[in-house]
Amino acid sequence: MRVRNKPWAQPLIDAHPEIITDHAEQNTGHWQARFEKPQPIHVEVGMGKGQFIIGMAKAHPEINFIGLEVQKSVAATALRSALEEEPLTNLQLIAGAGESIETYFEPAEITQLYLNFSDPWPKKRHTKRRLTYKSFLASYQKVLISDGVLELKTDNQGFFEYSLMSMNNFGLVFDGVWLDLHNSAENVGNVQTEYERKFSEKGQPIYKVAAHFTK
Amino acid sequence: MRVRNKPWAQPLIDAHPEIITDHAEQNTGHWQARFEKPQPIHVEVGMGKGQFIIGMAKAHPEINFIGLEVQKSVAATALRSALEEEPLTNLQLIAGAGESIETYFEPAEITQLYLNFSDPWPKKRHTKRRLTYKSFLASYQKVLISDGVLELKTDNQGFFEYSLMSMNNFGLVFDGVWLDLHNSAENVGNVQTEYERKFSEKGQPIYKVAAHFTK
Ligand SMILES: C[S@@+](CC[C@H](N)C(=O)[O-])C[C@H]1O[C@@H](n2cnc3c(N)ncnc32)[C@H](O)[C@@H]1O
Ligand SMILES: C[S@@+](CC[C@H](N)C(=O)[O-])C[C@H]1O[C@@H](n2cnc3c(N)ncnc32)[C@H](O)[C@@H]1O
Repeated sequence: MRVRNKPWAQPLIDAHPEIITDHAEQNTGHWQARFEKPQPIHVEVGMGKGQFIIGMAKAHPEINFIGLEVQKSVAATALRSALEEEPLTNLQLIAGAGESIETYFEPAEITQLYLNFSDPWPKKRHTKRRLTYKSFLASYQKVLISDGVLELKTDNQGFFEYSLMSMNNFGLVFDGVWLDLHNSAENVGNVQTEYERKFSEKGQPIYKVAAHFTK
Repeated sequence: MRVRNKPWAQPLIDAHPEIITDHAEQNTGHWQARFEKPQPIHVEVGMGKGQFIIGMAKAHPEINFIGLEVQKSVAATALRSALEEEPLTNLQLIAGAGESIETYFEPAEITQLYLNFSDPWPKKRHTKRRLTYKSFLASYQKVLISDGVLELKTDNQGFFEYSLMSMNNFGLVFDGVWLDLHNSAENVGNVQTEYERKFSEKGQPIYKVAAHFTK
């Protein structure tokens, strides 16, 4: 998702420290204090404009959600969408990078993690940038509780093939695999992402895997 | 694959003890003696009419192949096809059931195992009949060498989703996952099965997973 720099982005972020931060490492170990109630924390890495994480926060008041996005302008767009809603006391946003997740969260601070339509980085020499590369999985494992869950959705065949391999090789235990989520009985309650809507409208199958880490 | 009983099947099997047996348990631990040379043994469970295993035997003289098929009439049809070839000194056939594989082979007698277009048994109450159910995987592990390989191809989405789950949960390590094998660069050297040709001609994607067991 390439976006022009938006001059309003930084001021908007600075004006809403109650819901977004671009210094997430200042909250490490203290995320629960930023929510109305202490509840399991679910994080999306690469939330884009936030459609999924906002939808999840509305659908699941019993969970605290955090959306993470590396591009400030995009994170600011998600912030703007969140501000259009009734106040969501179970949603926080981070302008920051997945690569730094271990500096944002303490070990076992998170219960579940989502990757939705992550950049596929199809070229072999870019393998290490894929958000399911083993170094990322190792970081996720550190910040997740010991049987923490990783859920991934994508339309990208090559990225999905790679992610199944990488997750399996890392030792993640699959709880569900869907090769055409939208035509599956388990699609009930699925909250669509922006990309998901776009690609499924084109008739592309949506792939999903749900898995958990073990020690 | 439903077939009428073929009266010529049993006599043809009885007439060719050099290549087929319906008492495979008599060869347990001695399969190498039935081949021209001792070489790694690869087994297909559910070979159908044998197109794949015969094609593999022709393409890979450096491997000893064994095709296993539970329906005698179908196994006899595979035998008939094999007899039409130049003598294949690296091919043996078994009229027998995957359920009995531990009685046919000694521990570590096999190097690699193939499942091609196995009956999907889509109903939940038939889960245990799927050739990737955990009890089957446990049997395969016993007769395979310690890092033995399991390769599976199918057109059936539900069976593939299930098999990825079941294989992962069993602890198999994925070496490759293909969601559209015939449009993949790794399709070079792929020997098609009868069902594979049929389904790919209809435009259906062919799924494949290659994995190995660990101790
Ligand atoms: C293709 S978009 C998908 C957005 C959204 N998840 C969806 O499904 O509609 C990928 C998003 O991930 C963000 N992203 C890519 N790499 C990232 C990283 N390492 N850390 C955080 N965000 C990242 C990109 O900036 C982009 O907004
Ligand atoms: C759908 S056909 C596929 C045949 C072939 N592998 C192909 O791809 O063309 C499945 C075959 O597996 C055989 N089969 C099913 N269950 C089996 C079992 N438990 N043990 C051995 N063979 C079995 C069936 O009789 C049938 O011939």
